[in-house]
Amino acid sequence: MRGMKRITDYSWEEYDALPVADKAECLARPDGMPFHTIFAQQFDRARLDRLCDAATKIRSIAKSRAGMEFLQRLLFHKRAMIYFTQPSSRTFLSFLSACQILGLKTGEVRDASVSSEFKGESREDSIRTFSSYFDLIVMRTQEKGLAERMAWSLSRSKRPVPIINAGSGKDQHPTQALLDIYTLQRSFERRGGLRGRTVVYVGDLARGRTVRSLSNLLTNWEGVRHVFVAPPQLRIGDDILAMLRDRGQEAIVSDDMAAWLPEADAVYMTRIQDEWDESQGESARIDTSRFKIGLREMALLKPGAILMHPLPRRDEIAPEVDADPRAMYWRQVRNGMWIRTALIASTFDCLSRIDHYFRDNL
Amino acid sequence: MRGMKRITDYSWEEYDALPVADKAECLARPDGMPFHTIFAQQFDRARLDRLCDAATKIRSIAKSRAGMEFLQRLLFHKRAMIYFTQPSSRTFLSFLSACQILGLKTGEVRDASVSSEFKGESREDSIRTFSSYFDLIVMRTQEKGLAERMAWSLSRSKRPVPIINAGSGKDQHPTQALLDIYTLQRSFERRGGLRGRTVVYVGDLARGRTVRSLSNLLTNWEGVRHVFVAPPQLRIGDDILAMLRDRGQEAIVSDDMAAWLPEADAVYMTRIQDEWDESQGESARIDTSRFKIGLREMALLKPGAILMHPLPRRDEIAPEVDADPRAMYWRQVRNGMWIRTALIASTFDCLSRIDHYFRDNL
Amino acid sequence: MRGMKRITDYSWEEYDALPVADKAECLARPDGMPFHTIFAQQFDRARLDRLCDAATKIRSIAKSRAGMEFLQRLLFHKRAMIYFTQPSSRTFLSFLSACQILGLKTGEVRDASVSSEFKGESREDSIRTFSSYFDLIVMRTQEKGLAERMAWSLSRSKRPVPIINAGSGKDQHPTQALLDIYTLQRSFERRGGLRGRTVVYVGDLARGRTVRSLSNLLTNWEGVRHVFVAPPQLRIGDDILAMLRDRGQEAIVSDDMAAWLPEADAVYMTRIQDEWDESQGESARIDTSRFKIGLREMALLKPGAILMHPLPRRDEIAPEVDADPRAMYWRQVRNGMWIRTALIASTFDCLSRIDHYFRDNL
Repeated sequence: MRGMKRITDYSWEEYDALPVADKAECLARPDGMPFHTIFAQQFDRARLDRLCDAATKIRSIAKSRAGMEFLQRLLFHKRAMIYFTQPSSRTFLSFLSACQILGLKTGEVRDASVSSEFKGESREDSIRTFSSYFDLIVMRTQEKGLAERMAWSLSRSKRPVPIINAGSGKDQHPTQALLDIYTLQRSFERRGGLRGRTVVYVGDLARGRTVRSLSNLLTNWEGVRHVFVAPPQLRIGDDILAMLRDRGQEAIVSDDMAAWLPEADAVYMTRIQDEWDESQGESARIDTSRFKIGLREMALLKPGAILMHPLPRRDEIAPEVDADPRAMYWRQVRNGMWIRTALIASTFDCLSRIDHYFRDNL
Repeated sequence: MRGMKRITDYSWEEYDALPVADKAECLARPDGMPFHTIFAQQFDRARLDRLCDAATKIRSIAKSRAGMEFLQRLLFHKRAMIYFTQPSSRTFLSFLSACQILGLKTGEVRDASVSSEFKGESREDSIRTFSSYFDLIVMRTQEKGLAERMAWSLSRSKRPVPIINAGSGKDQHPTQALLDIYTLQRSFERRGGLRGRTVVYVGDLARGRTVRSLSNLLTNWEGVRHVFVAPPQLRIGDDILAMLRDRGQEAIVSDDMAAWLPEADAVYMTRIQDEWDESQGESARIDTSRFKIGLREMALLKPGAILMHPLPRRDEIAPEVDADPRAMYWRQVRNGMWIRTALIASTFDCLSRIDHYFRDNL
Repeated sequence: MRGMKRITDYSWEEYDALPVADKAECLARPDGMPFHTIFAQQFDRARLDRLCDAATKIRSIAKSRAGMEFLQRLLFHKRAMIYFTQPSSRTFLSFLSACQILGLKTGEVRDASVSSEFKGESREDSIRTFSSYFDLIVMRTQEKGLAERMAWSLSRSKRPVPIINAGSGKDQHPTQALLDIYTLQRSFERRGGLRGRTVVYVGDLARGRTVRSLSNLLTNWEGVRHVFVAPPQLRIGDDILAMLRDRGQEAIVSDDMAAWLPEADAVYMTRIQDEWDESQGESARIDTSRFKIGLREMALLKPGAILMHPLPRRDEIAPEVDADPRAMYWRQVRNGMWIRTALIASTFDCLSRIDHYFRDNL
């Protein structure tokens, strides 16, 4: 039974030492959906289905003026802080749009240098300040684990406002994983679903957090086969391979993209994350030429397969590919807005109102 | 007949080679008003009159609380991205205000360094991302022609959102031209209109894009006399002189401001655009002392003449002049907000709703 | 009788030479509440009570969805410019939230480098531009007296929009003083009020503007005893001591915090304002070790005393102290939002509508 473990019952050290499933329970609302959204593993299959369903309903409702009015009335009385010390226009604007669709007013810090941190304030104090003014904090930082620590800390304060982790360090980026799942779910929902699909991840698998989160979430579907294709220097972490095998899924490591493209139901491209380089030019010395998709590579893909990319891209996917109907990355961008809208609506317990509106009006 | 040429029928190279009038047709909505607003020449006399009329109605409607409510309801369900990689608080805030008056929610990038471009994304991908989240893109960039290329590109995508060019490189700045026309039109509407007026442009005519656009639009009125007063190094381009003469208007080049002030119906001052200097201090070596307006120069102006400036100013106009009733530049600023509001309303086909409200309530 | 002195009757030099009370009259609305809010001394006891009362009502009204709707309808038709050239997330977000609670749309400049000032525009012209687009200007600048000069200047223009000073140089920060007063007033309202209380100010009393403004406002209550505890290099200015004594209040200077803690009804901690250092490392050479509050110091405080801090803090107050019920600084943050909301509502003459809603609905 859910709801037994409460985050306020633990010191930070105790909480931090809990198994992931117990942490997820600590972070949940009474109905099991996340209150704080910190890591992808908070979502089991039922919650993913609930959220994807809500995203699709919101998308339909938003098509009409009356629907937009309904949506903007849901949370007009709430305000969200979008706090990004690690720059990312894409994710920032996606959350901003999600807030606007639901009528939330927003404040933003997109650059730590603008903030009062130069006056020597701790980041904890900054975030606690945001919690004084706002009803939701969406945060993205370089610092691993900060969102989680703040979730724990705010939960013990007099204004326990929810936190959504919009990317923390090299670690977790749960809403990217949600939008990836949503894109996969929509692409295959009329073709038998995700069960037993082969997903080929390509690129910088060592440092990209999206692949870690996505492969984890995909274990919610039976028989998914995971193929990790990367140059040797950028191969996927062993912890991920172990986790997948532990859950009974096939996990394959390869450095031969061309060999695996014909097998793929979904190809998930990523860019080289050289902002994490430990020495200058480290990434530039890696030969990535065989991990790029152009028209020739698209010819190897099955007609029903899809090509994904979390963006921004550099040259991993040639612009000519954009016109191919299997190219899903621009739809991913928009899916991100809808799933984040659904997540925020869920955070404030609005999903059943959305269900009702959808049932009565569409 | 309008609407015959469609932007999606052309490759970029084909489109780019079209005559301006054909391009304008490609960028138009079915009613002939611009869908994408890229250059000033999209506006013929009828469209300028339509827009000025709408701006004046909006201005009246906005005076009451009920009117503001009507306006904010027009586009409450839409969202606009204001993307400025070339800083400009004035134009930025003018567009922001215009959006707010119509109820549009806004997202913004005011500084390329905040964006994900540092991750190596192409500008095209950035803008395509904005089009995924927003219903309108207002953009200002250093890069000449980018707004137009993006208009072409988005028109071929699944979300052909409209683009408004808020200034691109040294080239076009159509909404500045619109606000200048609106200011002239309002100043002379009860005194016989713009026909046959003498407009004296002063300052950096080589690099200021506003004068290029404005003189072009003024050819929509018969018999306008254009006098271009500048130091020799900053004189107006020959292409503009040729264009004006080609359309049967008088175009005079001079470096003697004092001689022309008594002739002017409107004086259009501009500042030295030294941000475009090719070598350091290039502009500072030019003697601009005879191209400034103080109280003494105002004494030379006719009582019914007006003094305009696109702002920001440096020392081209002394602050003492501000109190003179012929000084129009602060009114220009506010006119800019109203004409941009009208333009956005037109982009979303709201002008007839504004007409009806005005007729019924004012 | 109020309203006799009008700002437009004076040249800047004449205005600037007026006694504070006359300036306050110049800056007032017909009902005596500030139109422009420039310095703390514009608030006498009656106005402070009026504003604190409004803040408390707004806070109650905002608890319900219907109440939030009422509040957001008050000023939905207005727009505010928040112009901060001196960075401060805390004050910025506080004003932003206050605007959003009342439905005002906002524009912002948080960094002078983004503005068109790089094109050589004067700050006066920038602010006059804001007044063309917006109905309220909230401004914070390094430049002492700029808000006041702009208030004078805009009052003489065709759009005399109100200005709220959100901090100018080392000088005035009236809304910080208001939130401090509001925090004190709420803390003691059921325990006999502020009359005769001992307030101990600690830290950088030479450069912190908050202490100057707060001690001044506290002279509106009888018999307040002011104790200024600081290292000798950072002691309070003699002008403040003279002002307090002049108004018949006790003003004590000390460098022994521990001796005064047991006497305090309120302790007002401040941080070392080293951004005002005239030589590098000037502040770092001062021994501040005896001017910090930890659990040991809290043990010296009376059970009914309160501990305040304008934030951001560095190490003046240890984080362990946060859990003590006497620690008021997080509540101060939120009080700041409410009192600023009340101030903006007052600026637009909405207080009686708030009174009526409160009476009828709560």
